[in-house]
Amino acid sequence: MLIQDTTPEMNISLLKSTHLGHIACAQGSQPYVTPFIYMYHENFIYSFATVGKKIEWMRANTLVCVEVEKIVSRQEWQTVVIFGRYQELPETPEFHHTRVLAHDLLSKTKVWWEPGYVRTVNLQVERPLQPVYFRISITDISGHQGMGGLPIV
Amino acid sequence: MLIQDTTPEMNISLLKSTHLGHIACAQGSQPYVTPFIYMYHENFIYSFATVGKKIEWMRANTLVCVEVEKIVSRQEWQTVVIFGRYQELPETPEFHHTRVLAHDLLSKTKVWWEPGYVRTVNLQVERPLQPVYFRISITDISGHQGMGGLPIV
Repeated sequence: MLIQDTTPEMNISLLKSTHLGHIACAQGSQPYVTPFIYMYHENFIYSFATVGKKIEWMRANTLVCVEVEKIVSRQEWQTVVIFGRYQELPETPEFHHTRVLAHDLLSKTKVWWEPGYVRTVNLQVERPLQPVYFRISITDISGHQGMGGLPIV
Repeated sequence: MLIQDTTPEMNISLLKSTHLGHIACAQGSQPYVTPFIYMYHENFIYSFATVGKKIEWMRANTLVCVEVEKIVSRQEWQTVVIFGRYQELPETPEFHHTRVLAHDLLSKTKVWWEPGYVRTVNLQVERPLQPVYFRISITDISGHQGMGGLPIV
């Protein structure tokens, strides 16, 4: 088995074709990691969530790390690791265009898991939660791939 | 779709039945997350790696976060998030027993992806790398599950 760096083109290709990743943030020296749904668009990672630990921590410390992976087999896999900064997209005139873009991008995904936004229905009364839209500005990308040829021993 | 807390028994069950997770560490305020292979045993997460960013960062700041997930379908999934501390298991008499335990536990896994230890073979000459064994002492576990019944909208 061989592990080698991937090209920038391969990294972007994986980010575009995958929509489930993991995002890490930190409060003081304590890191936290959780799965999330995202869309990649022109050097930004767009996502949304309801207010909770992840949003609170990223608001206080905008340094984050995003990891995305694709597994074909035990010998063929690809990972991308991004270092970047959290940018919230609030409902203000300044961020209107970017917020609409985030909404349009994310509405294309089938949010099939760990939704950032969950409607709860209780006695037929819907109580939609308010989503927080955000994006990660990418400051560094690196990637690796495993390639078959030699068995893992 | 409903999301609810899981019981401690469900969390331990997921940790025991899964061997691929994600581990986050931090250098200063910068978090870092990467996939890793692990084995759960009596309130510890055992793993190994070669020296690199992850090991270097965890040696300097032992606060880590481990996330493990199981996806059955878009509506049925379970996640466990652990906060804990990195403990390296060096080749010293003090850690001999624990290091042997880690080796025995991890040798049971089929390391099918993102191996912490990769042999490289060049012109028939093997150059094994020196693995770093470590464990995470668990200070907090929480878990969630998604349950079907309502469609994700």
